[in-house]
Amino acid sequence: LRYSSEIAALESKAYMARYQVILAYDGTEFRGYQKQTGARTVQGVFEQSLRKLGWLDRSVLAAGRTDTGVHATGQVLAFNLEWRHSDGDLLRALNADLPADVAVRDLHHAAPDFHPRYDAVSRWYRYHLFCEPVRDPLRERFAWRVWPAVDLEVLNLSAMRLLGRHDFAAFGSPPRLGGSTTRTVSRAHWMEASGQTGVPLIIFEIAADAFLYHMVRRLVSLQVEIGQKVFDREAIRGYLDGEESMPVQGIAPAHGLVLSSVRYQD
Amino acid sequence: LRYSSEIAALESKAYMARYQVILAYDGTEFRGYQKQTGARTVQGVFEQSLRKLGWLDRSVLAAGRTDTGVHATGQVLAFNLEWRHSDGDLLRALNADLPADVAVRDLHHAAPDFHPRYDAVSRWYRYHLFCEPVRDPLRERFAWRVWPAVDLEVLNLSAMRLLGRHDFAAFGSPPRLGGSTTRTVSRAHWMEASGQTGVPLIIFEIAADAFLYHMVRRLVSLQVEIGQKVFDREAIRGYLDGEESMPVQGIAPAHGLVLSSVRYQD
Repeated sequence: LRYSSEIAALESKAYMARYQVILAYDGTEFRGYQKQTGARTVQGVFEQSLRKLGWLDRSVLAAGRTDTGVHATGQVLAFNLEWRHSDGDLLRALNADLPADVAVRDLHHAAPDFHPRYDAVSRWYRYHLFCEPVRDPLRERFAWRVWPAVDLEVLNLSAMRLLGRHDFAAFGSPPRLGGSTTRTVSRAHWMEASGQTGVPLIIFEIAADAFLYHMVRRLVSLQVEIGQKVFDREAIRGYLDGEESMPVQGIAPAHGLVLSSVRYQD
Repeated sequence: LRYSSEIAALESKAYMARYQVILAYDGTEFRGYQKQTGARTVQGVFEQSLRKLGWLDRSVLAAGRTDTGVHATGQVLAFNLEWRHSDGDLLRALNADLPADVAVRDLHHAAPDFHPRYDAVSRWYRYHLFCEPVRDPLRERFAWRVWPAVDLEVLNLSAMRLLGRHDFAAFGSPPRLGGSTTRTVSRAHWMEASGQTGVPLIIFEIAADAFLYHMVRRLVSLQVEIGQKVFDREAIRGYLDGEESMPVQGIAPAHGLVLSSVRYQD
């Protein structure tokens, strides 16, 4: 008996592995990513499904905490699990249990010390908007309706100012009190796409090593006002590198924002 | 007193007019278009908002009744209303009261005898799908996930067979018992679009003088199986014009379907 339980313990160890998951969710019905007592959160819902497969830890690791209403197509999670079947079977088992507004898009083995937040090299966000004077229920679930219309050329000239290493203190607070507000932006681009129903959609794509709290939504808000010619296109420069001491006031709504991917070294 | 009440009656008559409304809705949370006691329906919600503006009739007229879960970007309604302000004011008053998943996209005066259903010359529908092995919460609200992937070229060769005047008895029942099942299809085309989140989406667009019950969803279901090469591309011909007596079994899910527009003579 003693001998066979030792073998069982060894076998179980052999099956224990760290997994990396790419998670997508429609943020509308969630109070953000991070677990909270008494609130429906992405982390809470995901951990509930994972527990049914024998997961016993306290919490899964995530690349970032998205706010209430923010969506994701490329959130990255990591957890340790003893699983005796294939990665594909684990993905299907999770998706069969998760509700319709969350899905595992990809899943594979990771290094035992992989950390989705600390190991991340860059984070990519997309902000969706459309310019119309009247409401549109089909587009507004995932996009901000803006009127008057924005000038895309002006927006792209203004977005170029964001590229490189800057102090973004006017656009948000750091995750830790007294932490640095300097970030390096590697992409900041406005583009047009045909939306879900074939109607135009404007997408702002931004990538950086990391973001301050509400930084993307403040950048979108200021740029939209520049695109609407409320402010001059040079206005953005005044807010960078501490030239202007006042923080940006406007915050674009959460429902237009999507965490689209998180990239790592390899 | 008598004189002034007569003037008031005349004035009120002068303001009474028929309005045509283009209505958009996300069908997810509705039990279809048509009013039903105890169920949340598009007609029920719209009439409730219209009553707050003094509308007293029994029901508004609609171009078509969409099923539970079916969306619209171009449903057409008509009603009579005494309204002393501009058309723009009426549109804004309605949109201010309607819930987030319904919106008036356009509104204008119509001829006093305009009927959105009887006067319609053609109806246009779009069916959205995407081909992937795993779930995608952001696309699946408005599109059907299909796997294995479909061949778009095969789909378009097969869709061409639908064009023109045919007996569609195998694809649905007529609105009235014993009514004709012959319809004239003026457009049937499959195309690729970039979806809301920049990921590909396949759209089937179909227009006809009128449709049988569940006709579009049966046509999509059969064509998807042809596109997946479960059936030969000539299979569609067997179901047209009474060659095959068995009706089509499959019905594509409601959440991929959008009533996109209804067209009239002028």
